[in-house]
Amino acid sequence: MREVEIKALLVDPYQNTPVVLLKDQSSDKVVPIWIGTPEATAIAIALQQREFPRPLTHDLLQSVLETLGGELDMVVIDHIEDSTYFATLVVRDREGEVHEIDARPSDSIALALRTGSPIYVAEEVFAQSAIDLPYEENEGENQDDDRKQREQFKLFVEKEMNLAEFKKFIQ
Amino acid sequence: MREVEIKALLVDPYQNTPVVLLKDQSSDKVVPIWIGTPEATAIAIALQQREFPRPLTHDLLQSVLETLGGELDMVVIDHIEDSTYFATLVVRDREGEVHEIDARPSDSIALALRTGSPIYVAEEVFAQSAIDLPYEENEGENQDDDRKQREQFKLFVEKEMNLAEFKKFIQ
Repeated sequence: MREVEIKALLVDPYQNTPVVLLKDQSSDKVVPIWIGTPEATAIAIALQQREFPRPLTHDLLQSVLETLGGELDMVVIDHIEDSTYFATLVVRDREGEVHEIDARPSDSIALALRTGSPIYVAEEVFAQSAIDLPYEENEGENQDDDRKQREQFKLFVEKEMNLAEFKKFIQ
Repeated sequence: MREVEIKALLVDPYQNTPVVLLKDQSSDKVVPIWIGTPEATAIAIALQQREFPRPLTHDLLQSVLETLGGELDMVVIDHIEDSTYFATLVVRDREGEVHEIDARPSDSIALALRTGSPIYVAEEVFAQSAIDLPYEENEGENQDDDRKQREQFKLFVEKEMNLAEFKKFIQ
């Protein structure tokens, strides 16, 4: 497994869909995951450490978890099926028993940001989907398999949105 | 407290915002609550008893609750402050201890529909916000205080959306 951190939250202009870039801590590769707008909003709010007067859905998820004595040990993005990414919440209950809960990556990330839990990507998922960090020019490098996807990334990263712009997008 | 059921999920054309109508079981009055689109979608999906291949956020909320041995005894929409409705999830843990968790009505309703838990409205909230069921004509009745709001309701209920239409709205 590879521990990852959230490198960016972007909008893919081709699909007009938010994308979260998960950067491998031990290399320059990122795993891009396309997510829904409400979940992207939940992630953006956590990244901005914004507080709302009322609990949003993922804040409530955190409250329910913690009220029942649960702890989110980690989140693992553990497999891909038909281009859909699957994740698992690894939750420890009050007695120390560990439970695995099936979840979408977007909800998992939104929760992990709130609880400060680490996010991992399984090696198999990493091997299938990691790409070079699209911010940097790597002209001389091997561009055999994912050229098209990388070209797309270069294009949309040129108009990378910061969180304020992302906020405009979702409104 | 008054037990309520979900009477309708509509779109207020003036504010272009979803509204859930909670009908009092012991009268013909309803409490309208304006909610966000993602939460309205979560409620619509539960009302339609649709199953998605991947857990949506409120499905995950239910999984976390149940994995940790929690039960949602009830949801109470318990007060209003500056036109904002507040709700409480009454959750019983594995040891039988009862916890109250602060939540928005929309998330509370979306969860209660999934767990089959009852939804209550506090008397104070009911007194402040209940209106006559806008489906029926009550021409001869006392229309003193909430006339404007009721007139609006009559208007938008004329174009009441069924769930299929609601789905179109949110897409």
